[in-house]
Parts: sequence; structure tokens; C-alpha cells
Amino acid sequence: MNPAIETSQAAGTVAPATPADGMFARVRFVLVETSHPGNVGSVARAIKTMGFGSLVLVSPREAAVREHPDAVAMASGADDVLAGAVIVDSIEAALEGATQTVAMTARQREFGPPRVLPREAAARGAAALATRAGDEVAFVFGNERYGLPNEVVMRCAAVTHIPANPAYTSLNLAQAVQLVAYEMRLALLDRAPGVPDDSGNIGYAGEPATAEQVESMFGHLQQGLEAIGFLHPGNPRKLMTRLRRLLARAGLEREEVNILRGMAKHMLLAVRGGSTKPERPGPESPARQEEH
Amino acid sequence: MNPAIETSQAAGTVAPATPADGMFARVRFVLVETSHPGNVGSVARAIKTMGFGSLVLVSPREAAVREHPDAVAMASGADDVLAGAVIVDSIEAALEGATQTVAMTARQREFGPPRVLPREAAARGAAALATRAGDEVAFVFGNERYGLPNEVVMRCAAVTHIPANPAYTSLNLAQAVQLVAYEMRLALLDRAPGVPDDSGNIGYAGEPATAEQVESMFGHLQQGLEAIGFLHPGNPRKLMTRLRRLLARAGLEREEVNILRGMAKHMLLAVRGGSTKPERPGPESPARQEEH
Repeated sequence: MNPAIETSQAAGTVAPATPADGMFARVRFVLVETSHPGNVGSVARAIKTMGFGSLVLVSPREAAVREHPDAVAMASGADDVLAGAVIVDSIEAALEGATQTVAMTARQREFGPPRVLPREAAARGAAALATRAGDEVAFVFGNERYGLPNEVVMRCAAVTHIPANPAYTSLNLAQAVQLVAYEMRLALLDRAPGVPDDSGNIGYAGEPATAEQVESMFGHLQQGLEAIGFLHPGNPRKLMTRLRRLLARAGLEREEVNILRGMAKHMLLAVRGGSTKPERPGPESPARQEEH
Repeated sequence: MNPAIETSQAAGTVAPATPADGMFARVRFVLVETSHPGNVGSVARAIKTMGFGSLVLVSPREAAVREHPDAVAMASGADDVLAGAVIVDSIEAALEGATQTVAMTARQREFGPPRVLPREAAARGAAALATRAGDEVAFVFGNERYGLPNEVVMRCAAVTHIPANPAYTSLNLAQAVQLVAYEMRLALLDRAPGVPDDSGNIGYAGEPATAEQVESMFGHLQQGLEAIGFLHPGNPRKLMTRLRRLLARAGLEREEVNILRGMAKHMLLAVRGGSTKPERPGPESPARQEEH
């Protein structure tokens, strides 16, 4: 296993070694009649943060938006996405080749396409990309003020919206794109072959302790707790049960078992009149984790 | 069926008839040492779009940030959230009463709290809010440039990060808050009223400890471990960090904090030549769990 993958798994991140680049490249973000060049730059940035690079502009108000200083300023670091944006003059051209099309619109339309939440739209899109090599996904966003014209919405297979606070829905264009791109990224990472799955890795970084190591530690700890007078030797049951439950919830690593044994040892030493000075950890000392 | 519900269902939104306002009010967003007032305004807006209103600022660079023109301008429409922001000067004050604490940090820390994705952090937080009326959730975000100091991260029970494109991770502060708030909104709407569901209960049976109870216990435990000679007073860091990580993974209950304090007390007593005999637990004794 290569070291980069090991590090990433240990930290529980989802970043895969192979980020399913092929699938990310088959997702496009389409902006229809955007008014402000700065917003186009912000969208370039939003999609790049989520691993996408395909931006299509339908009749932007500024024809030279890719070079507009506001767009360039807002795209900072995503200027490659901005420069590579494709400008077209019809929704048909923008959607060419797309098999899964989703329009973003908060507006109710009586006979519009079926409405799904972004999470479901993303899951469907990712499923299509993963199962059919020819599929492509397009997410379509309207003008900052007017949203999408009906005829564009009707050309899409589904509509979606951000389920925002009904009393305050004011997400801007780039924020809406950001959330949809985020959902699509997670859906694709879920589907990507060979992606390290961290679902079961919510805390271990080290090697888990074996059952015998844990049992032996509990015996040692109990002796230590009795020595310092915390446990009644005749009736340790309840407290040890509580400690077992607490530590079982955490799931102990081997090094943690050693730390707990080190604690037990020092409890015994403290009471037996042994050294109560800090031990200089040697190579065999259970407290050697201090040096790591 | 009432018309409001029909409309909402027809639109495919997840907004319930009763939007679980109580649970939204028990979620706070904590910004630590934010430099730019404009970002505080943007964050106020980001959390309000997702239905939240509790903003806590730890030592913002501009003390009068709530009235700063940049903050007010960026908050547009969320000026109530900005004006109601609470300014404190310590992370302890910011986390007071919080039982579920999540730090946002992309940085790898070898022995930090367990790392989860925002979706899982949100699911856990929502489960806690739905099942225990006294629980409160805090999401903690650092400075725009420097992120969160280690000591703040170590006080949180979990860390999270936005699983962005590894080649271009440049989300700004408000965007990161937006995504976390979005996940938390969806998790809460999933759990909305009348749906007490224990499936997300991650192992608590008792009442969870608050952040201050946990901090105070760690101080006490460190004294005890130094007394028995297990910790070098000059260099307790690594071992305490390991213990914090272990116990953060478990998620401490209030009674467990009392048990650990009882252990610390007996370590100190054992060395100071006090009674090393088992204490008869009285009604005020931290070791009273023995009798349960």
C-alpha cells in the first residue's frame, strides 16, 4: 500500500487515491443568463473545490465574462475552470450529450419535471455515471434574479432546490452551486471503486487491542484501583462494570491498553512506597507512548 | 390534511409542519479569533439560511464586530443573527453547556479527537438533540488563515472537515459553515417532531457530561497522575492527549466523569498519605456510583 493512502485512511478522510476522475469529468454545471461576472468566477471556484471542472455558460450578460476582471478575481485559483468555460447560446447546446439533467429552481411549477432534493439528484446522477459509461450529468442554474425560464426547466428531467429556511432562503448563486457540487462529490466518492471507506474508521488510528490484552489490563487496573483505595476489594463489581462499559464504547487500541497498564502500575508503586517520581520510560516501559 | 402540509409535500421539500424549532435553537456556531468582520456577517447569513440563529464569537479581532460596517453589509437580512452574536474571551465560555462539540479542522493531528465527516457529525448531533432535551451541539471554526489552535481542538469531542478536492481545498470560512449548517439542517429535518428515534443513539445510556465538566475532570486527573508519578509534570502533553482522545471517542457521561474524578482524588490521597482505605461513599461522594 502506498504511504499516501495509508495516511489518508488513518485520518479517516474520504479522499481516494484514484478520485474517480472519469466520473467527475462527466458532470457539467450550466449557468443560464448569469448577470454578474463575479458570480461566474465564484461558481468556477465552488465547483473546483468539489473536484469538478466543466462549466457551461448559456448567453451570459457579459459575452467576455471569462476575461472579465470581476470573474477572474472571484475565481482565484480556479482560473483554469473559468478560462475553460464553454459559452453557448441555447440550452440545447448546453445540454448536448447529457443524459441526466437537473434544473435548480425554488419556484413551484404545476406540471414541471419531478422534484427531488439535491442529495437524491446526486445519488441518481452518480448511479448513472457509475453504471453507464456514456452517461453525463448536467446541473442547470438560472439568473441571479429571475431564475430559470420555464422552457429551460421543461427540458430537464428533474428539478431540485436547496431545502433552506423558508423564512430566509437567500442563498446566492455560487452558494447553491456549492451545495449541489458538494452533494455530487459525496455521491461520486461513495460510488468510486477502490475508495477507502472510512465508515467504520471513526477513531482508530492505531492497532486495536485483542480481547486478551484488554482483559489482562482490566485485572491490572483493578489491582491499582484497590491499592489507592478507590475500589472495595470485596465489591469492585459496579465500578469495574462502569469502566468496562466506558472503555468498550471507545474501542481500545493496543497502545492505549499499555497506557492504562502504566497507570495501574504507578498506582501500585505509589502505595507500596516505591518510587513516586516520574519513571524515565525505557524501551520496555508501558509508558513509552510518552515519547511518541 | 392541512393545505400547508400539502403544498410542502407537493414540492417535495422535507420541511415538516412543525419545524423542530426547539432543536435548531440548541445548535450553536462558534467562531474562534475570526479576523475579518465581513466573514462574521457572511457566517450569520449562512447559518440563518439553514434555520439557525446562535452565533458565538471567541475573541474576534474586531471587538465591535457586530456593528462593523463590513459585517453588517455581508449579513444583509441576517442582521438579527449578527446583532445577537455572543462575544466571549475563552473557548470554555463558548462551549458552556454544550454536550456535543465538533471542531472543523483540515489539519491532521496524530492524537486528536476522532474524525468524522460533516454528515455523520450532523447525524450524531441531531440524534442527541432528538433524544435528550438537555443536549446542545456546538460546531467550532477557526481563524481564516490559521485555523483552530490545538488546545481548542483538544477540547472538542470530534473533529470534522469538508471532504473537498485535495488539489484545491480553498473553501472560505462562510462556505465551510454553510456546508456544515446544511448537513445539520437536513439531519434535524430528518428527525423532526414526533419521530423520536434511537437508531442514531451512539451508545449513551446516561446523561452526557458538559464540556466544562469534562475539562474540570481532566485537570483533576492530571494532578492525580502526576501525584502517582505516571506523568512528568513538565511534559504531560502526549499522554493527556492520548487519554483525551480515548475518552472523546467514548463520549463521557456525567456519572463517568464523577468516577474518573473519584479515581483522581484517590490517587492524590494515596500519595499524600491520607487514607488509602476504601472510602465509604456518602451522598456527596464522587464515588457514589459504587452503590448504583
